Amino acid sequence: MPLVTLTTDFGLKDHSVAAVKGALYSELEDVEIIDITHLISPFHIIEAAYVIKNAYHNFPKGSIHIVGVDSEITPENKHIVMALDGHFFVAANNGILSLIASEVNPDEIVEINIHDRVETNFTVLDIFIKVAAHIARGGNLSVIGKKLNEIKQLKHIEPSVNNENKQMIGHVIYIDNFGNVVTNIKRQSFLQIAKGRSFTITARSQQFKKIYESYSDAINFSLPKDQREEDGKKLALFNSSSYLELAIYKSNPSTVGGASSLFGLKALDTITINFDE
Amino acid sequence: MPLVTLTTDFGLKDHSVAAVKGALYSELEDVEIIDITHLISPFHIIEAAYVIKNAYHNFPKGSIHIVGVDSEITPENKHIVMALDGHFFVAANNGILSLIASEVNPDEIVEINIHDRVETNFTVLDIFIKVAAHIARGGNLSVIGKKLNEIKQLKHIEPSVNNENKQMIGHVIYIDNFGNVVTNIKRQSFLQIAKGRSFTITARSQQFKKIYESYSDAINFSLPKDQREEDGKKLALFNSSSYLELAIYKSNPSTVGGASSLFGLKALDTITINFDE
Amino acid sequence: MPLVTLTTDFGLKDHSVAAVKGALYSELEDVEIIDITHLISPFHIIEAAYVIKNAYHNFPKGSIHIVGVDSEITPENKHIVMALDGHFFVAANNGILSLIASEVNPDEIVEINIHDRVETNFTVLDIFIKVAAHIARGGNLSVIGKKLNEIKQLKHIEPSVNNENKQMIGHVIYIDNFGNVVTNIKRQSFLQIAKGRSFTITARSQQFKKIYESYSDAINFSLPKDQREEDGKKLALFNSSSYLELAIYKSNPSTVGGASSLFGLKALDTITINFDE
Repeated sequence: MPLVTLTTDFGLKDHSVAAVKGALYSELEDVEIIDITHLISPFHIIEAAYVIKNAYHNFPKGSIHIVGVDSEITPENKHIVMALDGHFFVAANNGILSLIASEVNPDEIVEINIHDRVETNFTVLDIFIKVAAHIARGGNLSVIGKKLNEIKQLKHIEPSVNNENKQMIGHVIYIDNFGNVVTNIKRQSFLQIAKGRSFTITARSQQFKKIYESYSDAINFSLPKDQREEDGKKLALFNSSSYLELAIYKSNPSTVGGASSLFGLKALDTITINFDE
Repeated sequence: MPLVTLTTDFGLKDHSVAAVKGALYSELEDVEIIDITHLISPFHIIEAAYVIKNAYHNFPKGSIHIVGVDSEITPENKHIVMALDGHFFVAANNGILSLIASEVNPDEIVEINIHDRVETNFTVLDIFIKVAAHIARGGNLSVIGKKLNEIKQLKHIEPSVNNENKQMIGHVIYIDNFGNVVTNIKRQSFLQIAKGRSFTITARSQQFKKIYESYSDAINFSLPKDQREEDGKKLALFNSSSYLELAIYKSNPSTVGGASSLFGLKALDTITINFDE
Repeated sequence: MPLVTLTTDFGLKDHSVAAVKGALYSELEDVEIIDITHLISPFHIIEAAYVIKNAYHNFPKGSIHIVGVDSEITPENKHIVMALDGHFFVAANNGILSLIASEVNPDEIVEINIHDRVETNFTVLDIFIKVAAHIARGGNLSVIGKKLNEIKQLKHIEPSVNNENKQMIGHVIYIDNFGNVVTNIKRQSFLQIAKGRSFTITARSQQFKKIYESYSDAINFSLPKDQREEDGKKLALFNSSSYLELAIYKSNPSTVGGASSLFGLKALDTITINFDE
């Protein structure tokens, strides 16, 4: 049974998501539809890129991932299918898939050209569903599009490193449900540059000199409970997707606040790591 | 496999939605349950009517649509099943289905009368699920209710037209996820009255003299990017459900604001279209 | 086909929920995954306990319920599986299952000990999914954990009664989607103490002398509509889960406000019932 996932900025109140699902059930007798999320901030390509990148690889190979963010077709915003590591992605060619393609090489990319056969002002419903159904039935990509050699790249997805490897400069790419601040600095790039040196991470007025491997790693459980620095402790860690994250231990953004509000950090803000000699 | 959709104002935090799904899985061995939405504003019949109307027809025939908004039974709020165009709707007789029935004639309507057999203070869980399961098993509607000839009508679902066809007066019926303002004026009614005349749409202090067929239709892509009026441009269009919508191009209600907040428009506000001679 | 439910505080925007679902589909060829909720307030054990308790029993026996709230493993927060009344629960041993176990005796409890075989900083994804898949394949609990005789208890889940049965003191345990205030006083405990006496419920400045059996029970439908006290009427009732609830008839928390905001009540606030002689 084909699995189709949906990542959109449609929200959860309008009829849009259900319309898309209904159309998929009408196209395919047997299909499993899974929501990645429908709460991407409107037209926010970087958020969408981060979420789909960290979700897709958990699904079985053969899964089809529809990304409906900023997907209205225009002369500057074409539609593509990308086949990569056994997964299929249907999206606009607006950079949203470049975070995935930066780590694994695509096997095939096509620019969808069925638009002359379909009239639409609801891209995901009218175009992406038809494309997904075609793939689910085992159809070739060459039937629905013409080959592309590369896709549009997102800006700000890679941190920069100065010439003498003394400094890495990254950016905030995502704020998570707990208000934690996710940067575009991955464990592997960090380790390659750091080479065991000590360092200071600076984000606005906050500084961190250690990166933990998990949240609870930052807590000293050998101390009695009333002597521990625990709830509300600030820390840097590599999150479960291996990105450098600035966090508050057990934070609640809607009450005491999370790292984002407490540190005053938002998407695209700068994070600097200075390495000692 | 029967498809059952759910449209409620239960929200996504309480146990209510899951309780209903669990009960459905307990009643039917094989069933696909799809959320239309659970974020209808509490007891907001017009919102629910708009959402279910625009979602249902995308699903395969035979689908069963449960609408759990303002559904507690009272002497004035009975429960009905409506069969229409191959779909089944289970809801309170509070007007919520009248938007659907205004465009397609129902094949059969019954007032549910199994309440003496079931004690409940959770209608959807105890009554609607049993009714849906009965339909899913191929049961006749006459077994669970007595025939009705008509259902209760919603107010404000049709725009009015003055005698000389010089003016249409409609209302806002929905604000969507992007803050866009959906009116009850449909393309077909508009075209019938307009007969090619020029016109002015007025909504509070905003005026529109053109109706686009899509969002990007309003953007002149032949101009260089920095000379275009683009993000933030206000426009009127027929949306993908053919309703007249007042919109902001690529709006984000939580940052710069959407049409609803920028134009100061909310549900049931008046929209006037004046036609030129 | 095994049914697996998910109750978490992951929110609906991050990739976490989808990652967990993808991993489950990768482990099990045939599985039905149902969201109970992902909107538990971060780390809020009482909310999670209330929601899972009132949802689970509607599902068919054999269902597996994953509860991912405050589930990071620490020396003080171990992982358990509890088998009870044909259902399986996978959660941290942080009190979250004690509300369920307070009403039905568990058949078996084990403390999960597969952690040495799995490295993780995403508990639900790496541990709970593997445990759920093991159970779904019919595996014994003794293979994945060592027997426990009891689980950690939540505080504030039982109301207290004074010696002469003149007073019950309960607490608010949940605020629902309509802003209604749910207490930890159940119908059965109330009736046992009340023994038919009249009483006064006091919550801050609000008093109630009657408990209804449903919302509409509080409305006198024999009066003409304009003479009824209806929308906005305050009432106490036993809700559909048999808990004493303080409510506003047809309230909307985002417009006129719900009982919680209007009465100034929040989680863990005290509710007192004084019985007359």
